[in-house]
Amino acid sequence: MLAGEAARLTARVGAPIEVRRVLVRDLAKKRVAACDASLVTTDPDVVFSDPDVEVVVEVMGGEGLAGDLVERALSSGRSVVTANKALLAARGQSLLAIAAEHRADLAFEAAVGGGIPVVRALRDQLAGDRVERLYGILNGTSNYILSQMAEQRWSFEDALRSAQDKGYAEADPALDVGGGDAAHKLVVLAMLAFGAQVDPSDLVVEGIVGLEATDVEHAARLGYVVKHLVVGRDHGDALELRVHPTLIPRLSLMANVSGVLNAVKIEGRALGPCFLSGRGAGDMPTAVSVVADLIDIARSIVANAAGIVTRSIAVTKRPLRPVGLSESRWYLRFPVADRPGVIGKLAAALGDAGVSIEQIVQGPPPSGPEASVDVVLTTRIAREEAVRRAIATIELGAIEGATFVKRSPRALRIEDP
Amino acid sequence: MLAGEAARLTARVGAPIEVRRVLVRDLAKKRVAACDASLVTTDPDVVFSDPDVEVVVEVMGGEGLAGDLVERALSSGRSVVTANKALLAARGQSLLAIAAEHRADLAFEAAVGGGIPVVRALRDQLAGDRVERLYGILNGTSNYILSQMAEQRWSFEDALRSAQDKGYAEADPALDVGGGDAAHKLVVLAMLAFGAQVDPSDLVVEGIVGLEATDVEHAARLGYVVKHLVVGRDHGDALELRVHPTLIPRLSLMANVSGVLNAVKIEGRALGPCFLSGRGAGDMPTAVSVVADLIDIARSIVANAAGIVTRSIAVTKRPLRPVGLSESRWYLRFPVADRPGVIGKLAAALGDAGVSIEQIVQGPPPSGPEASVDVVLTTRIAREEAVRRAIATIELGAIEGATFVKRSPRALRIEDP
Repeated sequence: MLAGEAARLTARVGAPIEVRRVLVRDLAKKRVAACDASLVTTDPDVVFSDPDVEVVVEVMGGEGLAGDLVERALSSGRSVVTANKALLAARGQSLLAIAAEHRADLAFEAAVGGGIPVVRALRDQLAGDRVERLYGILNGTSNYILSQMAEQRWSFEDALRSAQDKGYAEADPALDVGGGDAAHKLVVLAMLAFGAQVDPSDLVVEGIVGLEATDVEHAARLGYVVKHLVVGRDHGDALELRVHPTLIPRLSLMANVSGVLNAVKIEGRALGPCFLSGRGAGDMPTAVSVVADLIDIARSIVANAAGIVTRSIAVTKRPLRPVGLSESRWYLRFPVADRPGVIGKLAAALGDAGVSIEQIVQGPPPSGPEASVDVVLTTRIAREEAVRRAIATIELGAIEGATFVKRSPRALRIEDP
Repeated sequence: MLAGEAARLTARVGAPIEVRRVLVRDLAKKRVAACDASLVTTDPDVVFSDPDVEVVVEVMGGEGLAGDLVERALSSGRSVVTANKALLAARGQSLLAIAAEHRADLAFEAAVGGGIPVVRALRDQLAGDRVERLYGILNGTSNYILSQMAEQRWSFEDALRSAQDKGYAEADPALDVGGGDAAHKLVVLAMLAFGAQVDPSDLVVEGIVGLEATDVEHAARLGYVVKHLVVGRDHGDALELRVHPTLIPRLSLMANVSGVLNAVKIEGRALGPCFLSGRGAGDMPTAVSVVADLIDIARSIVANAAGIVTRSIAVTKRPLRPVGLSESRWYLRFPVADRPGVIGKLAAALGDAGVSIEQIVQGPPPSGPEASVDVVLTTRIAREEAVRRAIATIELGAIEGATFVKRSPRALRIEDP
């Protein structure tokens, strides 16, 4: 992009953007983009001793070396463009402070949602407003798998294999399907949306690993689609940040985000709802975001106003609301013995815990005498701790000593993004 | 917003944003926002002679006086934030040139899509990319009327009355339902997306006036939703800019944008698709956009870099592709006599004009001997001039002298945004 659009970029910036140095770990590795071999080095000192290097673009990934290099760049007054969500989630607040101290910018549009301008929307468009809630589909691999499970009626395992065949999922897909990648992105969004530095390990994070096809089918019959959703809410005194598979109404825009697409919905106090969707990954969408940040920064350098682009991001430590106190509607599936009275006992246990039932649906009857039948129910808005307590009671078979639950129940939250 | 969020805005900008003067046409008119009466004036000279006025926010509307004031502000080196799409559509290129000449900014996020950051997306996020296509639902009144026609099965007239009762439509709704408002917005988007200054009167503009409930119903049966869509395409040598009621597939994100919401879909060469949706009008969403622009501009003034925000917008005159050469699929409805052979004649006329038919559906049989039956068909991709020629031939009854067409046919484009 820098080579192909050089003339236009120069006009927009007021000066050419030139690649001065390319720092790599491994000189021998084949690269997609061609560049002058004399620029390539494995020695960071070559980069940092060059006074013509004014901006550093970090797209190497990882937290250790990448973090040290980003910090070194900012400390020397050089602005940084990064796509590194793990680094930002771990050290965002500290890196922003170093940038501000040295009148440098730290821009990271590519870190969340690939080419979707969600960082820009939160940082610039909502600068005068307050974000009350945000929702997002931020992991393309998980969304592809869930879309295939819903559309092709595949199992999780088959859908994962297809994602790997297509190159959407890594050989080790743990960070994607375990929810860790989406959690990093939610922490980055929380910095911008809620001005909050949060430790990713403090979030509620559930991946889509082990989600069963039967739950996707039950959800569809009830009018829902299962999506891997990030949820952020500002309660004033505390934040609520969660990442988990979620039932959302089929007719919502978010439910229609399929395949590897990403989406974010922001609810501003004054703005109201704002929904953004597009490609969340891939070399070109990422490049669009990196180049956009580069243009902003280069323009400010030309105007002798370095550090102006991201200086306004204000981040402080903010507490998270305890998990048990979070409130939502729930989808619960109990594989139970096909006997009279079972539904009554389930309902009683939920009622005792203070959880109101909205509807109850029974699955098709079992094929053998030992098999179980699914009882699926949805609740009204309930506290998570109450729902968990009811499930534990039911699982323990503590109600009148009856062990009618055949296998582990499944509990999924319902949201209306 | 400026009063309520003053402390946060000051922190973000690096200096307070103060309202110094308020220029109005009519001192007696009641205003929603309270302000110090001593600031209010009807005399522009009071504003322009005040050296403390550094930025002018124009939200008065209209092209004449507003245009003169915006030009006067820019010519004096003051940056301008405006929500005035009609003014920008008419004089955008010239006003941007005046701004650049005087190192001032002309920011207009609120002019299109209310609180949706679509101007920012095109101006900043896609600064290094090229926009190939864009689609939009940009008139909330029209979208509300079409949503009501589809969901409540109302006539256009009943839906318009409902929009007026709810305050969505003006007493004279011509600019909304005639398509003029959406056309102004498309011209503004074309400046940013295609770097093009275009005369609004050169666009293909069809409103939703007179759209019949029966077409909305036929569309639904075929799997489509009728939306008032703006379409922009860059063909390299020329642009295609159109505004018209359009059939779009029910499962697309755009089809699920209902009520007064707006949406824009941008297709960048590198970015791929990017979809944005939210409130397209209303005082608070508009305020969010105005304040966001104000923050950008104020920050650049504090950094002594006035004019940096919008300087990069490059606009030149670009030709439009002739209407007849535009290509799309079509929905055609012919109210015809209920006689054998009619479908064959319709098909033959279309075939003679080089238009391929995709499917033909016949409506319910007529209730009386004089009544007509609807023959609805969809075409493959065809040139507009060919479709118009076929319709004219059929309407003239020129095929074998048979006047089997009972009333005017209806022709609507089909797009897949």
